[in-house]
Amino acid sequence: MLQRMKNPGKTRSVTVSDVAREAKVSKATAARVLGGYGVFSDKVHEKVMAAAKALDYRPNELARSMTTGKSGIIGVVVGDIENPFFSLAVRGISDAARAAGLNVILTNSGERIEAEKAAVRVLMGKRVDGLIVTPAESRDISHLRDIHRSGRPLALLDRALPGFDVDTVTVDDHEAAMRATRMLAQAGHRQMAYVTAVDSARHEYRDIEQIYTSSVRERIEGFLAVCRQTDIEAPERFVHLGATGPDETRAIAARLLSRADRPTAILASDSLIALEIFRVVRQMGMRVPDDLSLITFHNADWTSVTSPPITVIDQPVYALGKKVAELLIRRLKGETQAPERIVLPTSIIERGSVGPPLSSQ
Amino acid sequence: MLQRMKNPGKTRSVTVSDVAREAKVSKATAARVLGGYGVFSDKVHEKVMAAAKALDYRPNELARSMTTGKSGIIGVVVGDIENPFFSLAVRGISDAARAAGLNVILTNSGERIEAEKAAVRVLMGKRVDGLIVTPAESRDISHLRDIHRSGRPLALLDRALPGFDVDTVTVDDHEAAMRATRMLAQAGHRQMAYVTAVDSARHEYRDIEQIYTSSVRERIEGFLAVCRQTDIEAPERFVHLGATGPDETRAIAARLLSRADRPTAILASDSLIALEIFRVVRQMGMRVPDDLSLITFHNADWTSVTSPPITVIDQPVYALGKKVAELLIRRLKGETQAPERIVLPTSIIERGSVGPPLSSQ
Repeated sequence: MLQRMKNPGKTRSVTVSDVAREAKVSKATAARVLGGYGVFSDKVHEKVMAAAKALDYRPNELARSMTTGKSGIIGVVVGDIENPFFSLAVRGISDAARAAGLNVILTNSGERIEAEKAAVRVLMGKRVDGLIVTPAESRDISHLRDIHRSGRPLALLDRALPGFDVDTVTVDDHEAAMRATRMLAQAGHRQMAYVTAVDSARHEYRDIEQIYTSSVRERIEGFLAVCRQTDIEAPERFVHLGATGPDETRAIAARLLSRADRPTAILASDSLIALEIFRVVRQMGMRVPDDLSLITFHNADWTSVTSPPITVIDQPVYALGKKVAELLIRRLKGETQAPERIVLPTSIIERGSVGPPLSSQ
Repeated sequence: MLQRMKNPGKTRSVTVSDVAREAKVSKATAARVLGGYGVFSDKVHEKVMAAAKALDYRPNELARSMTTGKSGIIGVVVGDIENPFFSLAVRGISDAARAAGLNVILTNSGERIEAEKAAVRVLMGKRVDGLIVTPAESRDISHLRDIHRSGRPLALLDRALPGFDVDTVTVDDHEAAMRATRMLAQAGHRQMAYVTAVDSARHEYRDIEQIYTSSVRERIEGFLAVCRQTDIEAPERFVHLGATGPDETRAIAARLLSRADRPTAILASDSLIALEIFRVVRQMGMRVPDDLSLITFHNADWTSVTSPPITVIDQPVYALGKKVAELLIRRLKGETQAPERIVLPTSIIERGSVGPPLSSQ
């Protein structure tokens, strides 16, 4: 009614094709500019908008999304954007998306399942074309099954979900933990601790069924396997949960290092944890590696500039992000092959933080 | 037509109120769940969805957004998500948003103006309620004026735009640079360099009009002001642009430190730059602070664990993010006070990276 009154003489409304012709660009380009999705230059944007104005083009959001069905946007849910692991993976995702002419919007779960579900709802509501998620938990994935059922492509970054068959890119966490633990055992350590941010109700590790983050689960299993091979009794007591932030990590480190049977080596599950352990070691007047050997997952910036520099498990984080985005983009383009599970290899960068224990026990 | 055929006997469609009554929650809560915005528990989500199913509720996206006009989402565009400065600021934003029942979606401009414009278009297209942007440039802000004109609240993080009066939260960059430069001058330095990621066509600093990032502009002006007060001639030659990534920064540092008239002190514009300078100093067999004094903006993780630890300009980054989100949220709630420009104070944390130059010149 309103439209009729405004354009009394018109027999049909102006279409994207009309605007494209006027702006001398392709219809696809005009659609991208008018729809505000995908990538285009400022110059093209200007030309199309000028043509749209000249023709009095009126966008019809509903009609547009019904025609193309595409928003040109990938939604990403990461565990903790302050962890440099995730920000580097996001760069990998963004580079792959840009190469395909897609944009990325990002949300942060803070490793909380409720926040992850809210983030998924927001992104689904915003009609992203596909999602990349680092699932905080493996026990509650109904929201991820919902995405999958809706037909929207979903890919998992860094953490696999047993029994949920979608495109997944992880690293060889189990192998990596075994190699690092073996390195410590071969240096002579028998009191070794594994410290992770994953938490449980009583902050106490009892068995692997408590661990709902697949990457951490793999790592703990690798750590325990080598401990058992080395005839360390009841190595479960050396697994420490709940290093959820700097304060929590420092409390765990201080408690561990004050014990009579203190560990002579620690394997840290991420670089934020290792940093706080390193600080506590120094504040207690101890030295790395004389008083404590230290290996951490993730080749974070700081690990190479300390004295001594820290031996790390180097994960191909950028490639991890790039690869998972490429798998998703293939599906966005309509390919329908079976889901892939890609496991990228890690390597250990040996620096100066591993040595023999001061007094063999 | 379709609806009629499916519900031939119905005289009116099921409303949000009906669902709310059935689920025994408030209408606002039912609207949030059905609209997929704001914060609610899983239990409430389940109840509402069960009620919606029982009543055969059919969401009408268009009707919903026309009624509430709100998506419950804040859009954020940051310069570089891999810079820990921005990821910490985003945590401040997210915490303030969560406290107000809002969600955050994030995009990364990589400090490129074209990407920033694309990000703004994406977020506007996704109908976020308001935007927080760290503008990459002050010379091209038509896309930001467009947001403002559309009536959607906009707030600027870390960088002010002269002549563009919107809510803005920055730190005292000019003062901070003056204090740091004065500290170096008082230690006896006369050959001081300022290194920044901001670039120009020839990577060469000529005058302040080249610098389109307001925070960096303020810092360079502060640096130059103290140099002039200290009777350093033509201090402009000590400003070095183009430290855009690790390789670029290392090249600049190696070139600077190889010169006969090499600087005896460097002020780094961000912690990513300072880290690479620190690496190059060590690789060249030089020592901090004997051969080079170093101060950096941002109290990054690594600065406190090096030997010596690095003196830093500590910015209230978390508070910066929290404050700018709070200003935006006030506007989302309908408050219409004049735009605020808040400048948060910084402080210098003195550690071990500043000393007198080895040989006074």
